[in-house]
Amino acid sequence: MSRAERGPTGTAGGSVPRMTARRMMREAVARRLVPGDRLASEPTLMSYFDVSRGSLREALRVLSYLGAIDVRSGPGGGPRIARPGPRVVGSALAIALQFRGTTMRGLLEARTELEPVAARMAARRGDPADVAMLRACHQRLAASAASAHRQRECLEFHRLLAAASGNDVLELVLTALAWMCGALDRARPEPEDRCDATRDALVVAIAAGDAAGAAALAAALLDTTTGPLRDGAARALDERVSWPDVDELPDIEDRKDVATWT
Amino acid sequence: MSRAERGPTGTAGGSVPRMTARRMMREAVARRLVPGDRLASEPTLMSYFDVSRGSLREALRVLSYLGAIDVRSGPGGGPRIARPGPRVVGSALAIALQFRGTTMRGLLEARTELEPVAARMAARRGDPADVAMLRACHQRLAASAASAHRQRECLEFHRLLAAASGNDVLELVLTALAWMCGALDRARPEPEDRCDATRDALVVAIAAGDAAGAAALAAALLDTTTGPLRDGAARALDERVSWPDVDELPDIEDRKDVATWT
Repeated sequence: MSRAERGPTGTAGGSVPRMTARRMMREAVARRLVPGDRLASEPTLMSYFDVSRGSLREALRVLSYLGAIDVRSGPGGGPRIARPGPRVVGSALAIALQFRGTTMRGLLEARTELEPVAARMAARRGDPADVAMLRACHQRLAASAASAHRQRECLEFHRLLAAASGNDVLELVLTALAWMCGALDRARPEPEDRCDATRDALVVAIAAGDAAGAAALAAALLDTTTGPLRDGAARALDERVSWPDVDELPDIEDRKDVATWT
Repeated sequence: MSRAERGPTGTAGGSVPRMTARRMMREAVARRLVPGDRLASEPTLMSYFDVSRGSLREALRVLSYLGAIDVRSGPGGGPRIARPGPRVVGSALAIALQFRGTTMRGLLEARTELEPVAARMAARRGDPADVAMLRACHQRLAASAASAHRQRECLEFHRLLAAASGNDVLELVLTALAWMCGALDRARPEPEDRCDATRDALVVAIAAGDAAGAAALAAALLDTTTGPLRDGAARALDERVSWPDVDELPDIEDRKDVATWT
């Protein structure tokens, strides 16, 4: 394969499958396809995109790895449009961080810097629906004693906070970081939670449009959450970010029960 | 393929190739392989990881898409370790943003919030080598009149600023965002640059450890850079982020001439 055939990106896999993958995504967006929409049969796709079976299958694999399609087999199976989300961003971030030898400490530092930014933006927007979701999540957390459930809701609270920023980039990146840090939570000895009051105050500040207060409280919340880690489990913080961790985390976006909250 | 065989992530491609890909990356990190290191022959890899040819090839494809290996054919070819960088993160971010209908305006908003954070961290660190790289890049920019060259150096300045934060997450995410915004620069009518003074002051503030000043100047720099866009080319800002854009951008990390600057 010549340099030119490999395309401008220098990545392997040939340019035909990659170009086909891009064309499919451009069309999917232009036609406003939504998650769950089925793609046509293999022969139809081969003919429409004018590619060989091998190129088509490789294009579908690329899109599958990127979370843009979901391939299920068996009756009623076949490729369907999916919605790439924080998992894909997290996976790409994690593999890059793993190669750099980044530790969980670096991940926490990024969250400590970025979550207050999201909280400030959320307070400026003061979207009532977002505030209601945050409040409901906080109430579920405060009422729950079961450790596994608390951990899920904790992740969900941080996801909702990131989403309340109203900025897709912050939402994707911060949610991916929260997931990667989820591995740390498993290393904690007790499901002790000293965050209820701070979380409550944060929701109040966002609802009141108090941007500076919300930013300070978001920083305090993360500080309280990770305090025990910094004090007692330095080893966990010095662990390197590992690529597999992300893929093995549950996909929160699938949890309709929590996401709709009504 | 049953649900169980597809693995916990729900993505297609089977769990054996994905698990193999992860094992390869874990070993690559554990053995401290560096970019350029060659992998063993296909039969050796098949035997070592105890997988079929098909599974091995798919594992290598996954890793290739993720930028963790680079496959070149011909004499001296074969898979080699690569270094997944901002391009991979940018590609994952871009496809997720494309599906959300995020506009370039949303991308700029994220940069406007995050670049000052990186500048503040850079000033707090005050790493002399990073400051020297930023200063050299600024000087190249100030001395250059050629539009294409300026554009490259502009991207490079923002990458260096992100790297000077000392945080891998911020470096990867901000560089990816700068690349995605690079598509906007092509839409600008003139290579006019009103940023030289601001950029100079920003480097001085970082060198002096003036965190608040650096943050304010980073915000001002982005504001000046994007001012013409906001004023005159609203249409460009309303364009949706498109997945292909990122892959088609040059890979700055390959540019040894600029990255080493000596």
